[in-house]
Amino acid sequence: MTLEIRPFTAADWPAVWAIIQEVIRARETFPYDPDMSSAEARDVWASGRTMVAVLSGKVLGTAKMGPNRGGPGAHIATASFMVAASARGQGVGTGLCREAISWARHEGYAGMQFNAVVATNTAAVSLYEREGFEVIGTVPRAFEHPAHGRVGLHVMFMEF
Amino acid sequence: MTLEIRPFTAADWPAVWAIIQEVIRARETFPYDPDMSSAEARDVWASGRTMVAVLSGKVLGTAKMGPNRGGPGAHIATASFMVAASARGQGVGTGLCREAISWARHEGYAGMQFNAVVATNTAAVSLYEREGFEVIGTVPRAFEHPAHGRVGLHVMFMEF
Repeated sequence: MTLEIRPFTAADWPAVWAIIQEVIRARETFPYDPDMSSAEARDVWASGRTMVAVLSGKVLGTAKMGPNRGGPGAHIATASFMVAASARGQGVGTGLCREAISWARHEGYAGMQFNAVVATNTAAVSLYEREGFEVIGTVPRAFEHPAHGRVGLHVMFMEF
Repeated sequence: MTLEIRPFTAADWPAVWAIIQEVIRARETFPYDPDMSSAEARDVWASGRTMVAVLSGKVLGTAKMGPNRGGPGAHIATASFMVAASARGQGVGTGLCREAISWARHEGYAGMQFNAVVATNTAAVSLYEREGFEVIGTVPRAFEHPAHGRVGLHVMFMEF
């Protein structure tokens, strides 16, 4: 089976919310309130261009993307990705990241920025570096990790 | 007369909105949509802890501040400052910045981060450096300046 990446629809929300809950409750990779409600999460995640990654009919990952800033900063895109814990290491994140880059290039963005990549999330950092991103800088001790304590948050960027 | 820095109240909105309009329409320092409405600006600017700087009864500057991120990132504060063009170079920005730092320290934040300081805004960069911030990294060409073209956006940080 090949991974399908398609637009999020309302019917996907239960599956997407389950992934978001799993990710934010782990507190290891996203600077989101781990106690946010479904409605709050939906405001955050399903307000821009939101995609899902589907394998054998099952939603295994999700992405959201859009301009990183407004006005004079709106030519740089940003994106966020979440993958179900059970599906990691199978290329779901890579597929979502590539689709986001492809979309942003096609839309005419001049680059893509990730604002807060947890330094200990080496799977994500390595994935982004493989796709062409580099670490612009690291805010020290800006993320409270349950196992590692306060770790850095990378700003990562790729110019197109 | 000494500069008074006090909490924003609803009656301040016309004066604050005039400053915001002036700043965002110049397109030189803030990655905000220059055409945002008063209601949109108020959602952005008056939703957290918002302050005004007053001299001789006149609002000359404004600041907003709060946690930079959620959940595991909520121990780092952020803040934004705007000063009326007619009042620049008189210490209004410095006063607002110092008040924000003082507030954040008192609230127990571990540091303060500015996410998008326009590299050509040397008055702001110098002010922040004087107060103890440093440039963590610069996203190249991430801000479209009307006179200078695409210039960098600094991420600046001070740990307390």
